[in-house]
Amino acid sequence: MSEIRSLALACRDAAPLLAVLDTPAKQALLIGMADALRHRTADVLAANAKDMQQAADKGVQGAMLDRLRLDEARVAAIAQALRDVAALPDPVGVVTRRDTLANGVQVERVRIPLGVVAMIYEARPNVTADAAALCLMAGNAVILRGGSEALHSNRAIAAALHEALQAHGLPAAAVTLVEDLRRETMVELLQLSDIVDLAIPRGGEGLIRFVTEHARVPVIKHYKGVCHLYVDRAADLPLALNLLIDGKTSRPGVCNALETLLVHRDIAQEFLPRAAAALLTRGVSLRGDEATRALVSQASAATEEDYAAEFLDLIIAVRVVDSFDDAIAHIRRHGSDHTEVIVTTDESAAQKFVQALRSAVVMVNASSRFSDGGQLGLGAEIGISTTRLHAYGPMGAESLTIERFVVRGEGQVRHPESRVF
Amino acid sequence: MSEIRSLALACRDAAPLLAVLDTPAKQALLIGMADALRHRTADVLAANAKDMQQAADKGVQGAMLDRLRLDEARVAAIAQALRDVAALPDPVGVVTRRDTLANGVQVERVRIPLGVVAMIYEARPNVTADAAALCLMAGNAVILRGGSEALHSNRAIAAALHEALQAHGLPAAAVTLVEDLRRETMVELLQLSDIVDLAIPRGGEGLIRFVTEHARVPVIKHYKGVCHLYVDRAADLPLALNLLIDGKTSRPGVCNALETLLVHRDIAQEFLPRAAAALLTRGVSLRGDEATRALVSQASAATEEDYAAEFLDLIIAVRVVDSFDDAIAHIRRHGSDHTEVIVTTDESAAQKFVQALRSAVVMVNASSRFSDGGQLGLGAEIGISTTRLHAYGPMGAESLTIERFVVRGEGQVRHPESRVF
Repeated sequence: MSEIRSLALACRDAAPLLAVLDTPAKQALLIGMADALRHRTADVLAANAKDMQQAADKGVQGAMLDRLRLDEARVAAIAQALRDVAALPDPVGVVTRRDTLANGVQVERVRIPLGVVAMIYEARPNVTADAAALCLMAGNAVILRGGSEALHSNRAIAAALHEALQAHGLPAAAVTLVEDLRRETMVELLQLSDIVDLAIPRGGEGLIRFVTEHARVPVIKHYKGVCHLYVDRAADLPLALNLLIDGKTSRPGVCNALETLLVHRDIAQEFLPRAAAALLTRGVSLRGDEATRALVSQASAATEEDYAAEFLDLIIAVRVVDSFDDAIAHIRRHGSDHTEVIVTTDESAAQKFVQALRSAVVMVNASSRFSDGGQLGLGAEIGISTTRLHAYGPMGAESLTIERFVVRGEGQVRHPESRVF
Repeated sequence: MSEIRSLALACRDAAPLLAVLDTPAKQALLIGMADALRHRTADVLAANAKDMQQAADKGVQGAMLDRLRLDEARVAAIAQALRDVAALPDPVGVVTRRDTLANGVQVERVRIPLGVVAMIYEARPNVTADAAALCLMAGNAVILRGGSEALHSNRAIAAALHEALQAHGLPAAAVTLVEDLRRETMVELLQLSDIVDLAIPRGGEGLIRFVTEHARVPVIKHYKGVCHLYVDRAADLPLALNLLIDGKTSRPGVCNALETLLVHRDIAQEFLPRAAAALLTRGVSLRGDEATRALVSQASAATEEDYAAEFLDLIIAVRVVDSFDDAIAHIRRHGSDHTEVIVTTDESAAQKFVQALRSAVVMVNASSRFSDGGQLGLGAEIGISTTRLHAYGPMGAESLTIERFVVRGEGQVRHPESRVF
């Protein structure tokens, strides 16, 4: 048996032990993990220093290097995130529906854990603790396959998690860190369809496409977030401007940042010059169609690719649309099913927008930056799904469970002639 | 572009038109389909006669030939099933949760259709109408890929469905029947991950494994139903006998029929001889372990394979277990995650049974034959899932939808410093 298969089997064997933990036991475990992480801060920072050195030697710079970096405050934040997950509602055992059928049989739908979740991720070492915590709170075992650039940091964080698991009488395999980071090993992991119930890739589009391409286990993911702000003819323009600036500039490198601005032609002349001035002041460059460029001289010409791009940067694509329907058609054609916003005071336009689009999150008069598990009330988030199955949009602990049927009778049979007594 | 891709694209283009239909429009459409099918009964029977002749020429016999056969009553039943689906609750637009966050933002979870569902199935022509109806009621477009043995029948049924679609101003592509039945065309369909949101295979284990192996789109399926009846030491034995006979003999060829009987050793001597007599009288042959054979002379020796087998026939595997835990261990090892039943008057044993097993349907003192969408109150069923994702157990119209986020604000931004006004 291959090493990855035997690791995964050990993880699967741990799953039934986690599935039956009650809420206080899971809370104590996660708080124990937070404590162990705090006590091991020095180890984690020493391990991270090795990763940072290796990354620097390879010429990694800027935002990527910063995402890898840990310091005392960041380790404390990771520990706090474990405590935050411990405070979330436990999704396991929740009865979502309860019916008594005409024959007296009682039917309940009850949430149970998925089983074994494989996380495939890059760079940020905090995912090691965050993902483990959410999986455990939902009663799952987890296989963590992080990036090679963070291996020392991930190993040190996992050691803290294992210490707490063992202190609570649970096998370390409940949180299994894959240290063999060869691509063929990842492919093998993604094909263990008798062991792994779900794979969640998080990272760049290249990683996600690789995972989707090679997986034989179910995958939930999003490739990118090309989020649109549509400013309707009936928009409150100051409100639209606030949402535009928040969506584009408050954190341009994340998937719920705005990438495209669509403006109804009836208000383009009033809105676009002011919007452009506010964006330009904040360092955002504009790429627009002809109508946009006629109103905003600083805008360069947008290509078709720009309208499908996730810039993750201070760049925005702009288009003036002739009608509401043109805005919908643009989003359907170029969108990524992640998050779309309409700014309007016209309630019927708002309803039509919501109904016409199939994106995971559709917003009326609110910032795209709220498209996040924490912001939308899920507590924490294991990822965002644009896979239209199981979960759609930000995924919290509940997305790591499944409803099953629990049926109770008093001897009812389907065919009366089956009765012997 | 290949023909299957262009068919699938036309189907996808129909999906937004279906997604916005209101409940009365969908009801009228399904009733129109039922009427068209009744009017075309003669066409459907003539087409079916061709399929039956071809099947007979190929030497198809018995149950397989019967599953293919239509007559006036069966066509009427298919039309009635369309009316029954029209009477089901519409899952689309249902608000499942509603919250107002601290910042005043309102968050709703609302059900929307999946989009495009591909059904891959064998033999029974009724699936053509049943699957189309459930997909349409949930606002989805559907691609139907039936078996070659039923092609004439499926084409005649689809023609009736298309007549109703067109009468309601909808494109026939909303229900697309694939007539090119080459395996490579099915593989191409299963890899259209930019078009098909979900594939549901229904049929023999060979077909389902083929679909799972080749799909790049999400697949929900079950391979087989190895359903267990565990008779606890605290069982009501007459009740246990009724459930055993109903589960094994009322329809042995279906996936919710019992395949394995586990009996606690404390009651084996009292229960097994009576159970065996009742089974033998009804033509069921028993395959047992040593302890079973010591009590039931007519039982042959069970192999390990017998305990994992879906017999779909009047055969049952039997084992005497030393304890409750041995019963759980047996089911975990040999089970298919479909349906398991405990017979007990001991409430704590019942609870432990439900908690220890991860099967899609777990029952206490009720027949495994209730593990069916219609029986469990879903109205109709598109399939049964043992895939631990999205849906688990019998799947009704709701399983063909997904919850998304609808967010309404009054200009809230995530970072106050983003406010221009």
